[in-house]
Amino acid sequence: MTRRGLLLILSSPSGAGKSTLSRMLMTWDPTMRFSVSATTRPPRPGEEEGREYYFRNRADFETMVEDGEMLEHAEVFGNLYGSPRAPVEVAMKAGRDTVFDIDWQGGQQIKQAMRDDVVSVFILPPSIAELERRLESRGQDSPDVIAGRMAKSRDEISHWAEYDYVLVNDDLDATFEALKIILQGQRLRRDRQPDLSAFVRGLNEEFAVR
Amino acid sequence: MTRRGLLLILSSPSGAGKSTLSRMLMTWDPTMRFSVSATTRPPRPGEEEGREYYFRNRADFETMVEDGEMLEHAEVFGNLYGSPRAPVEVAMKAGRDTVFDIDWQGGQQIKQAMRDDVVSVFILPPSIAELERRLESRGQDSPDVIAGRMAKSRDEISHWAEYDYVLVNDDLDATFEALKIILQGQRLRRDRQPDLSAFVRGLNEEFAVR
Repeated sequence: MTRRGLLLILSSPSGAGKSTLSRMLMTWDPTMRFSVSATTRPPRPGEEEGREYYFRNRADFETMVEDGEMLEHAEVFGNLYGSPRAPVEVAMKAGRDTVFDIDWQGGQQIKQAMRDDVVSVFILPPSIAELERRLESRGQDSPDVIAGRMAKSRDEISHWAEYDYVLVNDDLDATFEALKIILQGQRLRRDRQPDLSAFVRGLNEEFAVR
Repeated sequence: MTRRGLLLILSSPSGAGKSTLSRMLMTWDPTMRFSVSATTRPPRPGEEEGREYYFRNRADFETMVEDGEMLEHAEVFGNLYGSPRAPVEVAMKAGRDTVFDIDWQGGQQIKQAMRDDVVSVFILPPSIAELERRLESRGQDSPDVIAGRMAKSRDEISHWAEYDYVLVNDDLDATFEALKIILQGQRLRRDRQPDLSAFVRGLNEEFAVR
């Protein structure tokens, strides 16, 4: 039976494992789509249109927002960021799930727009010390940037109770197993199986001719 | 982390595989509890109190209903049948799930009483011909009894859309795999994890002393 694709929202403080888990999901099931954001920020060297971001000028971005073509959007440090709606709807109709690597504000807007098609998962670190250790071990950020990320983490974590599922990522493989089970279970929900009505109609026709 | 046990309602027309699937679940996870019904019908030879049924006289049964001690009950051919509440609540607190092998009316009453603690799964046969074949191959019922079961099946199937999940049992192992995934996914829901609040409080305390 075909099913309707769902929208999987993954949120977590930076360093809790959200991006790694998204990548693991896409490798496990290549039919899944990663939602690429649109932004008004100019491309950096090496960034490709449609891979890191869809790059749009402010006028085009604002038109998309007015036309309801953004599932969510926000302004950060003077640049607009948002999740385009059209590719998500194409994926849903084709029975493909879309993964959103997104913060609580974006997640909340998508939930409001797409309701029962959304499954939201919050990833928690096993401890704050471990979260900081992971950020430091990446070796890509200055102490100032890390301090900024840690402050933002505290705010992000304060929204844990708004999610359908919350996983404590103390073991990446175990967390990934849990995430797969959540996704597989959600795919089985009756309201994601549009072919069931026709199937039951068939059973009733069989009753009628007995 | 400990979690709150859930109530798994399995419904299906007789012969679709519900009882076999319940037994497979209990073997797979022996911590699960099967809800034994109470009844006013007298015990038959070989039946044991608390195994097939809890046998109660009508006065005792009615007192239990009045006291809210039945999650659901119904009268069938002059006998009362019902699901006692107390053992379910004990199991829930101990993090044990309870399986109900029950028809749509009982399922609906339990859903009303226990709301978000209920997960409901409807099992459909692959075809009506196959359903009849399974009933006949049991060799335990007369043609009249089978005809009665088939008529009841039609009524039971008409309630498929009231369930959270609907599985077509054309392959018992595949259906069991799906059932396990549904159950495991539901166990992971945030609102079934009472320890998460304390865990996040711990993270916040860690932030506070940094």
